[in-house]
Amino acid sequence: MGSRYTIGLDYGTNSVRALIVDVADGREIAAAIWTYAHGHQGIVLGKDPNVARQHPADYLKGAELTIIEALVTAAETVPDFTPSQVVGIGVDTTGSTPMPTDADGLPLALNPKWCENPNALAWLWKDHTGWAEAAEITKLAAQMRPQYLAKIGGVYSSEWFYSKILHCLRTAPDVFDAAYSWIELADFVPAAMSNTLAPGKFVAGTCAAGHKAMYNTAWGGYPDKEFLGKLDPKLTALRDHLTPRVKDVSSAVGGLSLEWAAKTGLPAGIPIAVGAFDCHLGAIGAGVKPGVLVKIIGTSTCDITVKANIDTLTDVPGLCGIVDGSVLPGYFGLEAGQSAVGDIFNWFVEYVKPAGLGHEALTAEADKSKPGESGLLALDWNNGNRTILVDQRLTGLLVGQTLYTTPAEIYRALVEATAFGALTIINRFEEYGVKIDEVINCGGIAEKNAFVMQLYADVTGRPMKISRSAQTPALGSAIAASVVAGAHKDFSTAQAAMTGLKDKVYEPNAAAHAVYAELYKIYRALHDAFGTTTGTTNLVTVMKRLMDIREQVRG
Amino acid sequence: MGSRYTIGLDYGTNSVRALIVDVADGREIAAAIWTYAHGHQGIVLGKDPNVARQHPADYLKGAELTIIEALVTAAETVPDFTPSQVVGIGVDTTGSTPMPTDADGLPLALNPKWCENPNALAWLWKDHTGWAEAAEITKLAAQMRPQYLAKIGGVYSSEWFYSKILHCLRTAPDVFDAAYSWIELADFVPAAMSNTLAPGKFVAGTCAAGHKAMYNTAWGGYPDKEFLGKLDPKLTALRDHLTPRVKDVSSAVGGLSLEWAAKTGLPAGIPIAVGAFDCHLGAIGAGVKPGVLVKIIGTSTCDITVKANIDTLTDVPGLCGIVDGSVLPGYFGLEAGQSAVGDIFNWFVEYVKPAGLGHEALTAEADKSKPGESGLLALDWNNGNRTILVDQRLTGLLVGQTLYTTPAEIYRALVEATAFGALTIINRFEEYGVKIDEVINCGGIAEKNAFVMQLYADVTGRPMKISRSAQTPALGSAIAASVVAGAHKDFSTAQAAMTGLKDKVYEPNAAAHAVYAELYKIYRALHDAFGTTTGTTNLVTVMKRLMDIREQVRG
Repeated sequence: MGSRYTIGLDYGTNSVRALIVDVADGREIAAAIWTYAHGHQGIVLGKDPNVARQHPADYLKGAELTIIEALVTAAETVPDFTPSQVVGIGVDTTGSTPMPTDADGLPLALNPKWCENPNALAWLWKDHTGWAEAAEITKLAAQMRPQYLAKIGGVYSSEWFYSKILHCLRTAPDVFDAAYSWIELADFVPAAMSNTLAPGKFVAGTCAAGHKAMYNTAWGGYPDKEFLGKLDPKLTALRDHLTPRVKDVSSAVGGLSLEWAAKTGLPAGIPIAVGAFDCHLGAIGAGVKPGVLVKIIGTSTCDITVKANIDTLTDVPGLCGIVDGSVLPGYFGLEAGQSAVGDIFNWFVEYVKPAGLGHEALTAEADKSKPGESGLLALDWNNGNRTILVDQRLTGLLVGQTLYTTPAEIYRALVEATAFGALTIINRFEEYGVKIDEVINCGGIAEKNAFVMQLYADVTGRPMKISRSAQTPALGSAIAASVVAGAHKDFSTAQAAMTGLKDKVYEPNAAAHAVYAELYKIYRALHDAFGTTTGTTNLVTVMKRLMDIREQVRG
Repeated sequence: MGSRYTIGLDYGTNSVRALIVDVADGREIAAAIWTYAHGHQGIVLGKDPNVARQHPADYLKGAELTIIEALVTAAETVPDFTPSQVVGIGVDTTGSTPMPTDADGLPLALNPKWCENPNALAWLWKDHTGWAEAAEITKLAAQMRPQYLAKIGGVYSSEWFYSKILHCLRTAPDVFDAAYSWIELADFVPAAMSNTLAPGKFVAGTCAAGHKAMYNTAWGGYPDKEFLGKLDPKLTALRDHLTPRVKDVSSAVGGLSLEWAAKTGLPAGIPIAVGAFDCHLGAIGAGVKPGVLVKIIGTSTCDITVKANIDTLTDVPGLCGIVDGSVLPGYFGLEAGQSAVGDIFNWFVEYVKPAGLGHEALTAEADKSKPGESGLLALDWNNGNRTILVDQRLTGLLVGQTLYTTPAEIYRALVEATAFGALTIINRFEEYGVKIDEVINCGGIAEKNAFVMQLYADVTGRPMKISRSAQTPALGSAIAASVVAGAHKDFSTAQAAMTGLKDKVYEPNAAAHAVYAELYKIYRALHDAFGTTTGTTNLVTVMKRLMDIREQVRG
């Protein structure tokens, strides 16, 4: 018998990739990537800067195009490769990225009647239009169901499922009323490819349901009708249309449909694993286990670790989520994250366009300077703060500019800001008894940017290790596929066979760390002044007032 | 008898201009401008961003080149013009811009031995290397001579005379020891052109001496030797080398020397008025009188008004200076200012170079947006804060950035920040009984930038009037020349004849002002949090700690 392969499909913010992996050793034999066709780099924007949508048609087209291209590449790379050696498919996606669906489970936006309506599209994770609804959900939960909040860091985010749905209900009732239900992108793709979108067949993933939709078997699944009804009576009806079949990534939702087999050339019926978020499957692809923090660093970060679910676990304030089985089956998944990392650097390069310099030139120049040399300090909140403040109504800040401040100095300050944000997350884990012994980084930035990784080591004072795979979410999806296909008996075995580290480890420089320890105190002073009400300052209103005024002016 | 003309020489931060003016009506018949040859746009920078020096040779060469060129242009413009019709010269300059001189009164830097030594050059107004010495002088004066501080806003600035000299003494003793005395640029040029540099002949101006060197007849002139000796014994010897002849701009320092007459073609012996700072003579050229605030808006601003010196005048905290006769003879001159205005916009365009956009394109784009629409707010402290905080160890701040913030939005926020700074100054005058009935703007930005002027009207809620002359400092110098030449009996008569306003007045828009009133509250919250110790916040240390760390790292 020849080699067996699985395919990981990884849906990012701007593009989707397909990765073909050898289940024996994790060797990645082929990959293909496709940028979504709609909007600006795949994102449909609005006049309101909180709007970020995507077109579901891009998700289907992206799967088809990347699988076909990856299969062609695999055949070119591995002489005896045939698509018949592919034994399973796994899927990871951004999230919470929900979209409204009809009674057959099809996204409304695939219907010509709705395809141009931005509210009928997928509401991308970084869509923050539901910020007021998020606050309303948080407030109601604090009164009625504090247990819901205890598992999500105390605050229900504007990035999440019900905030978006409730905002749609309030501001686009035509779309809400036309929808039978709502589906997460992570659940949509596996279901579409296995022809299990129909309500009677549909399976949702533990990961999206638990982290974004407050699903927990401890209280009977999704939030109860009394709670949802207080938000809006129409949500009680919606609850009946959310599937009771919620499973972790060790299950398959079904087999590849004949239609998709025909489209792609893959064998019909090969199992498709339950979908999960990119960071969760990315953590698996990077080798997450108790004591290991995996940082998936891309446009944003997800910071993931796990804790054995037989342990007691204090709820950790500010964490996005603590969900049983959301990462590795049999463990609590603990998720933190930064709402923007690469996106902040991209903003500077693509929007500010400083001196026509790209990332490479800015990095080279920034790398010549020393910690503290510019006198600049930034907050990494251009897209809000996911952990530990759980507040999307925060914005960026830069302080220390002179008349001679250069683009490279600003760029370095932005990188440093994200490192300080990363340190704040590590500290929060440890403050609540989740010890971090090892940090494994993955994602585009970890892979490509030695400057950023060394800076993270210097700021945190910890070695930064790098996942061997450059595409851990896709690899994690392929690992899930290998488990549901029976190629490995469990995730631990699959991870041992298919994951690894690069030789290069970024060790912290003691002198740099000493300077950063001083700068971090200032970062924390600004963080607490602008982000919390625990300080003695009144600056916590500054960013919110500016946003209020902005919204008034924009109407 | 034909028309009579005077020449105003105006030494700015980057260039010098000569203006030939008809004394009958203020008609400007010719002008010439020359950018200083040394350094970056005339400024010699150092590794320490606090360093800003200029070469005295540029001052002499600039006078010669611009006078000659202006005379040629005058002859082309006015058919019967001859240089013999020029009856006097006035001079205004940046300041405090002192330079070390030898026993003959010549700047050390004109000696080949010293010409390459940055510490022997002129220490440009915006050189802040003496920040520690400024704090030391302030502290000592608070203990020993509080009356000194009462007239300068309570804080002796790092931009001023003794801060720079003491810093030179401490860090470049070779230069200090080689110097017989120190001379302000405002005094150097008139003395050089009238051959009165030699200690026995030299006359200093009230303006520079009073505003920057704590000269006041109430306490016998310059600070006493006991005080100076406590700073350093060597300063007591320096005091003996500072001239006791200190006069206001209604006096001449002497007549044009034969050497300069030969160089320029002007009549030998025509009177040269005592020099003063650009903003003070600019205020005269714009028509300053009691109740009128003149804002000279360029790379920085000077904000000048006068009050009859028969009135009682409460000392105004945070004003740079209150000096009898420093602007108009017979009135208290009141000086405030912003350490950077145009320099902040220039920094953004020339250092950040956003999207390759220049001032014009950024202005056009920024002008399309509405107040508050960007959600951004900035502090205008990239070069410290002159009024009302009198603290050079402050830096810029920008808050409210998202992932979609554009260069034009940042540019507008920077312009708004300077407008908020301007409003803070107007408020401070009025809080202390100096009523402002009218605001007249002049300088390059007032002249050219309708966007900035309308925004200032909207932010302050006051009409912004514009001086008729685009070159009020040079015009003010020409007015002083007309008085010392006897063409007018006094400044009031000369101003009536030679100054005026443009027809265009920028009236405040009520709706915009209402939004800015809200934004100004946030500006003041940040201003007080980062700039004062009166709030309940601990953020006043943030900018200073960043600068401390920067200096430690840079060594």
